Amino acid sequence: MIDLRSDTVTKPSPAMRTAAAEAEVGDDVYGEDPTVNELESRVAGLLGKEAALFVPSGTMGNQIAARVHTDREQEVLVERESHIYKWELGGLAQHSGLQVRTIDGGDRGVVTPEAIESGYVEADDHRPGTGLVCLENTHNSKGGTAIAADRIDAACAAAADRDVPVHLDGARLFNAATALGTDPARLVRNVDSVMCCLSKGLGAPVGSMVVGSEAFIADARRIRKLLGGGMRQAGVIAAPGLRALENRDRLSEDHENAERLAEGLAEIDGLAVEPPETNIVLLEPGEPVETFLGDCKTAGVLGVPFEGGQVRFCTHLAVDADDIGTAIDRIAGR
Amino acid sequence: MIDLRSDTVTKPSPAMRTAAAEAEVGDDVYGEDPTVNELESRVAGLLGKEAALFVPSGTMGNQIAARVHTDREQEVLVERESHIYKWELGGLAQHSGLQVRTIDGGDRGVVTPEAIESGYVEADDHRPGTGLVCLENTHNSKGGTAIAADRIDAACAAAADRDVPVHLDGARLFNAATALGTDPARLVRNVDSVMCCLSKGLGAPVGSMVVGSEAFIADARRIRKLLGGGMRQAGVIAAPGLRALENRDRLSEDHENAERLAEGLAEIDGLAVEPPETNIVLLEPGEPVETFLGDCKTAGVLGVPFEGGQVRFCTHLAVDADDIGTAIDRIAGR
Amino acid sequence: MIDLRSDTVTKPSPAMRTAAAEAEVGDDVYGEDPTVNELESRVAGLLGKEAALFVPSGTMGNQIAARVHTDREQEVLVERESHIYKWELGGLAQHSGLQVRTIDGGDRGVVTPEAIESGYVEADDHRPGTGLVCLENTHNSKGGTAIAADRIDAACAAAADRDVPVHLDGARLFNAATALGTDPARLVRNVDSVMCCLSKGLGAPVGSMVVGSEAFIADARRIRKLLGGGMRQAGVIAAPGLRALENRDRLSEDHENAERLAEGLAEIDGLAVEPPETNIVLLEPGEPVETFLGDCKTAGVLGVPFEGGQVRFCTHLAVDADDIGTAIDRIAGR
Amino acid sequence: MIDLRSDTVTKPSPAMRTAAAEAEVGDDVYGEDPTVNELESRVAGLLGKEAALFVPSGTMGNQIAARVHTDREQEVLVERESHIYKWELGGLAQHSGLQVRTIDGGDRGVVTPEAIESGYVEADDHRPGTGLVCLENTHNSKGGTAIAADRIDAACAAAADRDVPVHLDGARLFNAATALGTDPARLVRNVDSVMCCLSKGLGAPVGSMVVGSEAFIADARRIRKLLGGGMRQAGVIAAPGLRALENRDRLSEDHENAERLAEGLAEIDGLAVEPPETNIVLLEPGEPVETFLGDCKTAGVLGVPFEGGQVRFCTHLAVDADDIGTAIDRIAGR
Repeated sequence: MIDLRSDTVTKPSPAMRTAAAEAEVGDDVYGEDPTVNELESRVAGLLGKEAALFVPSGTMGNQIAARVHTDREQEVLVERESHIYKWELGGLAQHSGLQVRTIDGGDRGVVTPEAIESGYVEADDHRPGTGLVCLENTHNSKGGTAIAADRIDAACAAAADRDVPVHLDGARLFNAATALGTDPARLVRNVDSVMCCLSKGLGAPVGSMVVGSEAFIADARRIRKLLGGGMRQAGVIAAPGLRALENRDRLSEDHENAERLAEGLAEIDGLAVEPPETNIVLLEPGEPVETFLGDCKTAGVLGVPFEGGQVRFCTHLAVDADDIGTAIDRIAGR
Repeated sequence: MIDLRSDTVTKPSPAMRTAAAEAEVGDDVYGEDPTVNELESRVAGLLGKEAALFVPSGTMGNQIAARVHTDREQEVLVERESHIYKWELGGLAQHSGLQVRTIDGGDRGVVTPEAIESGYVEADDHRPGTGLVCLENTHNSKGGTAIAADRIDAACAAAADRDVPVHLDGARLFNAATALGTDPARLVRNVDSVMCCLSKGLGAPVGSMVVGSEAFIADARRIRKLLGGGMRQAGVIAAPGLRALENRDRLSEDHENAERLAEGLAEIDGLAVEPPETNIVLLEPGEPVETFLGDCKTAGVLGVPFEGGQVRFCTHLAVDADDIGTAIDRIAGR
Repeated sequence: MIDLRSDTVTKPSPAMRTAAAEAEVGDDVYGEDPTVNELESRVAGLLGKEAALFVPSGTMGNQIAARVHTDREQEVLVERESHIYKWELGGLAQHSGLQVRTIDGGDRGVVTPEAIESGYVEADDHRPGTGLVCLENTHNSKGGTAIAADRIDAACAAAADRDVPVHLDGARLFNAATALGTDPARLVRNVDSVMCCLSKGLGAPVGSMVVGSEAFIADARRIRKLLGGGMRQAGVIAAPGLRALENRDRLSEDHENAERLAEGLAEIDGLAVEPPETNIVLLEPGEPVETFLGDCKTAGVLGVPFEGGQVRFCTHLAVDADDIGTAIDRIAGR
Repeated sequence: MIDLRSDTVTKPSPAMRTAAAEAEVGDDVYGEDPTVNELESRVAGLLGKEAALFVPSGTMGNQIAARVHTDREQEVLVERESHIYKWELGGLAQHSGLQVRTIDGGDRGVVTPEAIESGYVEADDHRPGTGLVCLENTHNSKGGTAIAADRIDAACAAAADRDVPVHLDGARLFNAATALGTDPARLVRNVDSVMCCLSKGLGAPVGSMVVGSEAFIADARRIRKLLGGGMRQAGVIAAPGLRALENRDRLSEDHENAERLAEGLAEIDGLAVEPPETNIVLLEPGEPVETFLGDCKTAGVLGVPFEGGQVRFCTHLAVDADDIGTAIDRIAGR
């Protein structure tokens, strides 16, 4: 079975397993896990920020950031198809009492300065003021689109003009950086906080990072405790996370494989395939999604349904060019 | 000064003042205020529902309804320009932890079955399920549009197909009924709850009603207490509320005055006026809103700014046809 | 029937009714109701604070204050039998996410500096910090005890030493001031905010006041809107509220009547009566509360059950010394 | 340095590290991690319940349980010194809007049926009803007291009589079972849900379990996602968790060491030592806690301050009988 459902299905490499086994650990709730400390310091450095925090999931990282940046009686501006809005069980309202205002980011999920300007709400006696703008890069629901630094900068400038902080959901930030050929620190230079995942394309078994200023991370650490994300000898998972960072260099292979897959699928009758920007391939199967995915599964390929009658295939480190060729053949012959 | 800012500025009539002075009262927190009880029974009857509850404001009525209808981890579908979403300080998230999903109701703010179908979210492990649909009639931000019974029915049917209750923000429900020539009970026949205001076009000094089933109102009474809306000898304001119900018959005058105003303003150079459906006139002044409203004020007419560079004028019982003529002249001569 | 259930059952006097009928009003949501403005200014002055806000109920006033004073992730220190904790549907947690920590105020419900010292929690990574201390005066559940200024001051000093603001639930503040012979402004000199009711012993039909600094009241106004407490021509109820303030002078009659009642009841076999401090008489009937209250009702006197097998009788302006004599006779002869 | 601060400081054994390295894993958010599934099934079986869920921390487990068991507008009854109340950042209010009502469990933190009876609140229009009772076993703040099955049963019966579910915080449940010589399934037979930690005395690096009925765990899985506790290839930490279960057999050594420590310390002048029931030793140092702990640290022993001027020492698998002897000598000679 070739599993293209998500890059979250990747299993840890032997090197990661060894790293887990050999990790120097301590009680991270006391701040004494040297491996966690190293990981936090390393990721903060990679992204050019002061500090970072290890969290069990990307969802927790996003929700912590939203809560730390905001006060009661505020709104948050999010792209209409963003993960933080669609796939996190409505946590913005539940954890932080935030009303969501959506921006339509178009085909690629880009939040423009104009959209921020028009979505911005000045707090008054009837209206919650805009307290946060959330961006997402790559944008999952739009097919893994990689938003360039100048677009991010422009959104940040529009937010800063209104004294509104910006959080970036960078679950696949390193895919964006790779695709754009941009240093990830450059990509996030103007955002106030970033969440990035170690457990997707990078292949770590568990964990994500929240990154920002020292003061932001101090608050984030407290909210992590509130949400129940404080872990003890977390070095056991931070160590594979450190190894996973080395996988940034090979994300380009996933992107080439996505390209290869898209090209192969585009030649199959009935499939309307979007050209991928990173490691995600979206297509319209020209038949009910369930039928198509069921036939693919029977033929030996797994994908997932997406909204609007789309199917998503996602490439990752457990799938190589040969597998892609096989997947195309199986889908063609389904 | 001719005050066309809102129908909320109306002052109680002599009859209402007398009613306040002579009201038979009791402690409504004990359920012993006969005037409140009469008002609740009267409004429930008018709308063809089992029961009603007197609340200090329309905002409280809407927020109570949203909380009673929903559970934790749910979403609410609202029209993008609806009052409950834009003008109630984000209460849906704060009182009830509800994530908002917006529907674009077009020029008139009509929520179609298709919009409900496409906005509906089935609860799963990542997504809060749709727990409520909110409608608004007349739709304030869209210029007081009156949505016909069959449109409401269609939305309700789409919601019912998905086991989702419907709440109607009928702050100006009686304006809608009057404009449509429809019995208000017919208009709300298929919604699960209604909020209607006594203090807008009907002219009562204070108060709104929440209306629905016996069970719904029992729960609503408890949430009213939670929000601090339990009042003692509330008959003093319920009595003018009862008198205000008689003003339903004269809402047509407000609508004729709005028509008159719109026609008069449309002849003034530079003003783009939307034809009104009820007692609200929206226009684009062709100059900055602040300038236009400032000049109107100097000339002796008050209106309010609306989003998108619009101005709202609202007719009501303290303004007669002559006042409208004067207002047009003043605005023309500003 | 002599109704001693609560001072909330008092009906407005002819003067109050006239005041309601003749009130000069405006739209208070626009800040344009002169009677509301006068009431707010008058009460602020009476209590020696900068500003005040008219709200529909004491519960709303208390909950607004708690929210304005606090941030997320905090605790509130309250007396174990206080109204804000026991009788407001758990609003501290629901409106403001506040964890409650209770202080045992002993027989009279006095919160000592020592209790604040021992209940105070310094915020850290595991513990929500103390964000507010709530006092209550008179203390309803303890039998209307009147807490003297120096006790209030001492609690305030202990809170101030820890940078914790103090809110006083003064639903019956004027009863306390009367019983103590202390200027109410003196009583609340060191608290940061006060809620006091117009609708209990003072006899207004509807309404309470929140009182504090200008900045506090500006925030309180916004939270009042969030909770749905913004009312329109509220002068209709503010006007009787202004008249109700004049009833402060006659609260001593209620206290004398309570004394009279307590003495009379103490002579009845089987009743263990606590000496009253203000207008509340608590007793243990020496038989099941339901039986006792049922028999009293049959005999023509109403009271309410209290926790711990107690019964509460409450004197108020609709009950004079003769009524008290009759009540004693009826209870004795039940 | 002999570290007796907490049993959370324990580092994974070589066997656990090997287990982590060799774990069979999958994507647990898809329910496909066989090691997590095995762990959940194993722990459910051990506790005689239908199902279990792996979570990153005990705090998350407790907070999930509280939310799943309750509705809006409810209260929760907790022991006054319980972890869920004191050390979880007020999460009951923040995640679930729950008002806390505290029970004084005396010296050993035992919640009696009488305490439940007296703390129970019937929901009405002013009062949030009791929605949950939380127990804790062993009771950390009371010095690791082990509450016997019949005491737990009695509390459960009192709660069940009122249709109130019971959650047990069993962070150190296996210590209780060991000390009492009772099967852990017997201990929790009548509670509706249990949280137990793998990362304290059992020595796993990360993770706790929530245990209950199938329906409860299905809901708990959703709330885990909301809180951000969904992890991917969590088998890497579940595998050491499985090994940690084997450490149940050796908890008696920790208890013997605690006994040994308590006896040794009791002979030191000035120290008032409580006789331990499990692996926690509380003492009053007869001098400022900071001084005492500072001197201990200089001498080579670590403990933590507890409230009321107490010090806690905690034994665990990284400390053997010789270490205890050394610790006593060092503290005596400090």
